[in-house]
Amino acid sequence: MIQKLIDNIKKTKAPIVVGLDPMLSYVPEHLQKKAFAEYGETLEGAAQAIWQFNKEIVDATWDLIPAVKPQIAMYEQFGLPGLAAFKKTVDYCHEKGLVVIGDIKRGDIGSTSEAYAVGHLGKVQVGSKAYYGFDEDFVTVNPYLGSDGVKPFIKVCKEEKKGLFILVKTSNPSSGEFQDQLVNGRPLYELVGEKVARWGEEHMGEKYSYIGAVVGATYPEMGKVLRKLMPKTFILVPGYGAQGGKGADLVHFFNEDGLGAIVNSSRGIIAAYKQEAYSRFGEESFADASRQAVIDMTADINGALESSGR
Amino acid sequence: MIQKLIDNIKKTKAPIVVGLDPMLSYVPEHLQKKAFAEYGETLEGAAQAIWQFNKEIVDATWDLIPAVKPQIAMYEQFGLPGLAAFKKTVDYCHEKGLVVIGDIKRGDIGSTSEAYAVGHLGKVQVGSKAYYGFDEDFVTVNPYLGSDGVKPFIKVCKEEKKGLFILVKTSNPSSGEFQDQLVNGRPLYELVGEKVARWGEEHMGEKYSYIGAVVGATYPEMGKVLRKLMPKTFILVPGYGAQGGKGADLVHFFNEDGLGAIVNSSRGIIAAYKQEAYSRFGEESFADASRQAVIDMTADINGALESSGR
Repeated sequence: MIQKLIDNIKKTKAPIVVGLDPMLSYVPEHLQKKAFAEYGETLEGAAQAIWQFNKEIVDATWDLIPAVKPQIAMYEQFGLPGLAAFKKTVDYCHEKGLVVIGDIKRGDIGSTSEAYAVGHLGKVQVGSKAYYGFDEDFVTVNPYLGSDGVKPFIKVCKEEKKGLFILVKTSNPSSGEFQDQLVNGRPLYELVGEKVARWGEEHMGEKYSYIGAVVGATYPEMGKVLRKLMPKTFILVPGYGAQGGKGADLVHFFNEDGLGAIVNSSRGIIAAYKQEAYSRFGEESFADASRQAVIDMTADINGALESSGR
Repeated sequence: MIQKLIDNIKKTKAPIVVGLDPMLSYVPEHLQKKAFAEYGETLEGAAQAIWQFNKEIVDATWDLIPAVKPQIAMYEQFGLPGLAAFKKTVDYCHEKGLVVIGDIKRGDIGSTSEAYAVGHLGKVQVGSKAYYGFDEDFVTVNPYLGSDGVKPFIKVCKEEKKGLFILVKTSNPSSGEFQDQLVNGRPLYELVGEKVARWGEEHMGEKYSYIGAVVGATYPEMGKVLRKLMPKTFILVPGYGAQGGKGADLVHFFNEDGLGAIVNSSRGIIAAYKQEAYSRFGEESFADASRQAVIDMTADINGALESSGR
């Protein structure tokens, strides 16, 4: 799957991923009204609204992008109907040929991590049959529990030819509280990064490992160090746009081959129509605003990469 | 809800929690056969089997225990039908007056953590209406992302009078890889513990905070230190029984008032019938074996507490 991600990036010339994190407040009123008319102001109604919102955005952007990253929390908050909309979104993006990164940030130990892994990446055994649960291509994983928590995911990735992005340095303001603590003079996130690199070297695609890392766009200097520590690791970079990251900050997350990173934007794309820069599209044409935001983001990042000679 | 947990512990004289982590391999054959006869060897069939398994265990133990801790991964692996069985289990345990600790180990940032919090503890707004999603009483939370990840959970707990157990030192063998790293000469888990204590002091029930901690039974010496660092924090202690923890190891997780900790056992109780000690019950009477295992575990822990004068 790491090769499919790379192939998709080369085909679209866009090292970006669209974060499908549909807050209900992002969904234009006409879509909410339609869903509520059909299902009432219920969890089913909310799920229908976010699914229709996603579908229009995917329809308007799929040919320009390699991958999407649905954030499962935004679906899980609507209970079972919300999770049904998550599954529908995953399946629909697959139909469009997109790589799906499930942003689930799970992490537990032993058989429990394995249960998450089979539920999201692999197949679960039921008697003589086996079934895919949510069937994403990659998932994000929290490393706080150590190898016991990560290895069951790696095992399933190996069997299914799928992949992981393990949290190393997250994009939020307080990520440093624990991640930046110095251990023998070096921040904890470097230790985690080295571990990710080691797991990665044992699980390689062609040039890159299918065990990737998450490093926030909001910490470009740390990204530069981590890029060197994890040369064969693909980096998923959240924090572009709404959280403050810009194309010029992101150059050092990439390798000299122009690969090795994929930059996520969620709000900045899916709620683009709410920004002044895209207000000309209007609420009804929110998906066209998202398409334009994808084009602009790709140009910003590619421009920065070209200026740097990558 | 922390007061209800304490009241339930006092009423049952059992500082224990039953981990409802139903692997399909724990479910006796007659229950699997019945579920598959009705639903086929499908995700729905698996969900029905684990739900019936849970129900019998709850029916056989609810009067002896204060709380249950369903591990959501074991349900999530069966996709949407599995999560429906999780919800059914939560609701059924509430009917029986049990406190429900959702072992979800979620953790993200800002609005995403808030989405998890409303989905599991609070109510989500849909137009003019608000709905509970999974509606547990407590959930477990991963601290790797720092305050940004935890505070949205705390906010919802305050509104809903619910609570958290934040991972401090986990019970698994590799938990030390990152958690034990020395920061200024002290292990990281102590820093996390101090943070939990601080969050806790600002969010108190009567004597204990509703912001609790997870500390593994498999590390009794560390438990002793953490108990002192977090005097008003309730500690959820996994790792008893199958993972190796014994009653005598657990004394120092408790305060002098005999409170302050609740010890989880999953496999040791729900799959008790598979152990030689309980084989006399037979597979058909698996729930009676679970009841006996609850009685024995409670006696083991209370005996150790009495010997220590707590």
